Amino acid sequence: MHHDDWVHQELRKLSKSLGFRYTPHQEIDNRLIKIKAGMEKQGIEGLLVVEKMNLYYLSGTTQDGFLFIPLEGNPLLMIKRELERANAESPLDQIVALKSIRELATLIQTHCRKLPNSLGLELDVFPVKDYFKFQDLFPNTRFIDAFPILRETRKIKSPFEIDLMRKAGEIGKKVYQEAKKILKKGMTEIEFGGLLEAVAKRFGHEGLLRVRSLNYEAYTWHVLSGVTGGIVSQSDSPMGGLGLSPAFPVGASLKKMRAHEPILVDFGTCYHGYQADETRMFSIGKMKQKFIDAYNACKEIHDTVLDETRPGADCEAIFFKTIQLAERLGYKDSYLGPPGLQTRFVAHGIGLELNELPFIARGQSYPLEQGMTFAVEPKIVFPGEGSVGLENTVVVTGKGYKILTPVSQEIFQV
Amino acid sequence: MHHDDWVHQELRKLSKSLGFRYTPHQEIDNRLIKIKAGMEKQGIEGLLVVEKMNLYYLSGTTQDGFLFIPLEGNPLLMIKRELERANAESPLDQIVALKSIRELATLIQTHCRKLPNSLGLELDVFPVKDYFKFQDLFPNTRFIDAFPILRETRKIKSPFEIDLMRKAGEIGKKVYQEAKKILKKGMTEIEFGGLLEAVAKRFGHEGLLRVRSLNYEAYTWHVLSGVTGGIVSQSDSPMGGLGLSPAFPVGASLKKMRAHEPILVDFGTCYHGYQADETRMFSIGKMKQKFIDAYNACKEIHDTVLDETRPGADCEAIFFKTIQLAERLGYKDSYLGPPGLQTRFVAHGIGLELNELPFIARGQSYPLEQGMTFAVEPKIVFPGEGSVGLENTVVVTGKGYKILTPVSQEIFQV
Repeated sequence: MHHDDWVHQELRKLSKSLGFRYTPHQEIDNRLIKIKAGMEKQGIEGLLVVEKMNLYYLSGTTQDGFLFIPLEGNPLLMIKRELERANAESPLDQIVALKSIRELATLIQTHCRKLPNSLGLELDVFPVKDYFKFQDLFPNTRFIDAFPILRETRKIKSPFEIDLMRKAGEIGKKVYQEAKKILKKGMTEIEFGGLLEAVAKRFGHEGLLRVRSLNYEAYTWHVLSGVTGGIVSQSDSPMGGLGLSPAFPVGASLKKMRAHEPILVDFGTCYHGYQADETRMFSIGKMKQKFIDAYNACKEIHDTVLDETRPGADCEAIFFKTIQLAERLGYKDSYLGPPGLQTRFVAHGIGLELNELPFIARGQSYPLEQGMTFAVEPKIVFPGEGSVGLENTVVVTGKGYKILTPVSQEIFQV
Repeated sequence: MHHDDWVHQELRKLSKSLGFRYTPHQEIDNRLIKIKAGMEKQGIEGLLVVEKMNLYYLSGTTQDGFLFIPLEGNPLLMIKRELERANAESPLDQIVALKSIRELATLIQTHCRKLPNSLGLELDVFPVKDYFKFQDLFPNTRFIDAFPILRETRKIKSPFEIDLMRKAGEIGKKVYQEAKKILKKGMTEIEFGGLLEAVAKRFGHEGLLRVRSLNYEAYTWHVLSGVTGGIVSQSDSPMGGLGLSPAFPVGASLKKMRAHEPILVDFGTCYHGYQADETRMFSIGKMKQKFIDAYNACKEIHDTVLDETRPGADCEAIFFKTIQLAERLGYKDSYLGPPGLQTRFVAHGIGLELNELPFIARGQSYPLEQGMTFAVEPKIVFPGEGSVGLENTVVVTGKGYKILTPVSQEIFQV
């Protein structure tokens, strides 16, 4: 059978029987209205979307290609590989084959009858080498960074997106429920983490958590026990863990988990690209009182952030409130990391990526808005001893918030 | 305890007890000699390494920062986070804190007494936005793409590197041995894949397989059964599988594996950043004869590539030989993918990334050299039915090759 015929006839049937959800046309249209308003404001005549998550957001597919969005008229999806699958997945009307990058300008010109004078590109991630190529392909075009427009549009989630995040949160709940049964004394951190991932995948977790940045890789299996919980590493996190080697110096290690240590499990899940991030504490036998006290402080800080969460609340003000509270509770030098290495946020926006708007953080003075989603994660770190924390993913509602990670917030003692 | 003190006193002790291997000083020196020869040839006075894998290759650490390599004199490692850990991991002598990217030029000037007139950057991945920042930071400096120098240097592996890849291959062997016990009728592809990953991690597999490219994500769990093995997706691979959603349209799916289907398991492992890639076939009950025949053809093609593997052999010539052989065996329209979608390589270089030199491929006419490592993976695809393949990672030796993935090459029937 010819591949294209099979995909055309069978792919959606098979995919739907296995639970695939396709982005509705109306959803894309709503997003495009906001994108175009941003383009108009910045004087951008055309936008060329390249990076995979933005491509998915605006076309419904992550097949390899480019999406051109003219200020006036319909978007054009140009696909290198694989065209028939993009046709099956994307609700867009105009989808064409792109044989070589050299055809880009011709296809856009045919679509719009002219090339744009100004073209938006995701300059935050677009490689310089490709940029030089684009300067040749579009010699009379001015390039503008379109990342701020995309970021602004993506920061408010639709009910469709929130539902996918809720599903990710449900997978997380299953993981933490099974975790209690899996955890055993003497098991290594990485064995525990690997088994948790296996559970998550069984329920449809997509494995990779995406972070928008050249060098930032996201790890699902942040399982830290005792002393490894006190180690800071390259990541912008209160603690990074030991990891498995200098090439992979974060997350779970081959260290065996011991009785009475704090075991911190920061485990994100991903469903249809949308993520839910959460952290819970485990222990084998009772955790030392010092860590229980610190965990209760994290819980108080966590609850304070959520008490303040409503449209209009200022992100930086909430952050400073948590700093004051941590000081008052006696954790000035351990809240969000050891002295000199403390991170500057207590919550990060989350959706298709782990570093979206908003940030509840120093220097981020803007209001929360309905439809924003963030993961709030107060953590307390004691170098040489361990760390504790609590994390949930929430959506800002009309009057407050709703938790998307419905796992019990107790310390899981086995 | 202060974090820096703890790291300084305890990190190496703990890491070594858990099997960490640090890159020796001599190893880095040998690499720097080659890099500097490349810089001299291209008239590059300084090289600023940013991307994580190149940073690891030339400094021994992946802590967040920049490595400056002057043509004359010692390299300078500038670390944003976390400095003490970089000190513990890197054998380099000059390691300093980098508080802000604005300090880059000052630190380099202090180190070299002047700023370089020409600066090499990894323009294949370096983002445009950062490039603009660098143009401000180094107003009188010409920027040159240093990726070709790095790629050329990295293509020949040292005994130290080959040993790490061999260890990755040993982890793979354990995975395939346990896979026979795990595979059950009615299990989904992703459940099987998740459990294989859990096994791999238990033995120190680092989870992520790295690919050098903006949009290319690598998946460990390429488990395809029957019909999903016939689906091509965005990846540059003969088949991509169904995956879990339009946001994750490659690899294992929620499809249940059935008796007599070909089950293709393409599973890479990673140890200290170094990867081994391999593919084996499984079936529940006997696989249909059509697939057994096609597998035997893959094995013949695989063996032919290895028969030709020795220093001096031309990569493109080997590729064409496999095309002719596939035709003669009756697989013209299914070798390396369905018609119109066939990939143009039968082997890819492998090391810290999955897309290194050499490629045994169309358009890649250059000789194999001793110390090159590649994964050879002939595959045959039948849309609507399934696919088969065999893959091993090998190193080119003085007279031939050595396999780094020592798993039996039979079809694993359970």
